Amino acid sequence: MSTAPSPVRRRGRGARERILKAATELFIAQGVNATGMEQLCTVANVSKRTLYSHFAGKDELVHAYLSGLEDDLLPVGAASAEAGHHPREQLLAVFDRRPEVSGRPLRGCPFLGAAVEIPDPEHPAHRLAAAYKSEFARRLADLARQAGARAPEELGEQLALLYDGAAARSTALNSTEPAAYARAIAVTLIDAAIATAGDDARS
Amino acid sequence: MSTAPSPVRRRGRGARERILKAATELFIAQGVNATGMEQLCTVANVSKRTLYSHFAGKDELVHAYLSGLEDDLLPVGAASAEAGHHPREQLLAVFDRRPEVSGRPLRGCPFLGAAVEIPDPEHPAHRLAAAYKSEFARRLADLARQAGARAPEELGEQLALLYDGAAARSTALNSTEPAAYARAIAVTLIDAAIATAGDDARS
Repeated sequence: MSTAPSPVRRRGRGARERILKAATELFIAQGVNATGMEQLCTVANVSKRTLYSHFAGKDELVHAYLSGLEDDLLPVGAASAEAGHHPREQLLAVFDRRPEVSGRPLRGCPFLGAAVEIPDPEHPAHRLAAAYKSEFARRLADLARQAGARAPEELGEQLALLYDGAAARSTALNSTEPAAYARAIAVTLIDAAIATAGDDARS
Repeated sequence: MSTAPSPVRRRGRGARERILKAATELFIAQGVNATGMEQLCTVANVSKRTLYSHFAGKDELVHAYLSGLEDDLLPVGAASAEAGHHPREQLLAVFDRRPEVSGRPLRGCPFLGAAVEIPDPEHPAHRLAAAYKSEFARRLADLARQAGARAPEELGEQLALLYDGAAARSTALNSTEPAAYARAIAVTLIDAAIATAGDDARS
């Protein structure tokens, strides 16, 4: 890959997209801290000047990288057309998804990764990761409520914890097996919460 | 803190311990990749030459850092004197522990952190993290077997997943709340596995 792209290409309107695509691939494959600006420029085929004309620095790039993944990775919201019909299935679908980023299966969770790599709770990237993880649980709670579950907020937090446990163990063990364990526990918790709600209604 | 310690101090027998202590504190607080050798030398109060006389490089230091935490963080083995008496309580104790490292409460899991920061599955630090995570589940399975649980291997994996989910969410959300959710699910799963085993025995 050329490190001296033509002025036309590097000033092209696609530069921002190329930079973000390169950042997404490299941050997911290598981590945020192990990826340098030099390598980003090489892979995106842009000059440093072009990169810095689009992103003030790495922090801004990390923020754009995570923001770009939110919509694809968050569970379908309770307000969506897809949800509502079968909220129990929507809850379980979260554990069946095998999300891909740039055509590759995603192992682990980029938001957990960023939170680990940027441990300062006040850093914008860490705050974004925390907000994402709260929103993840909130959407599951909404679906749980629609499914008629008892204590939907609690179930939402529990299911989010299962999801994150599978993501963390998948990263460490290089295996997709943990997702199956998480799903099995999720079935137990969801059905217990719905059954209990039914009991309450009948009593 | 002096960056030019006296030859006596930096060649002292405590240099290795000081380096490892500094590495442990900095790796946990900042992450592995964000911690440079310069800073390690400054905090440990040793010269670079002394550091490299004890550790061939950062990889070796990361390995020593993780190895040094294993015994403190792994669940008590089923073979220990403590275990065996109340295996159900030993299982739950894993969720009640608030481990400290260098006198500070540990948020998240250093092994998950290292696996995220060093994503190459073949890297020695990643392999060590993976082995630790497998051993963690294996010890829980041993305790589950002692507790008379049905399918103890499965319960061990499930409880390890809960533990890691709480660790991951604690890191992202800067909160200890996820540990309570993990414990509540653990109680449900443990009691169900023990009750079912009892049913099997009676049938």
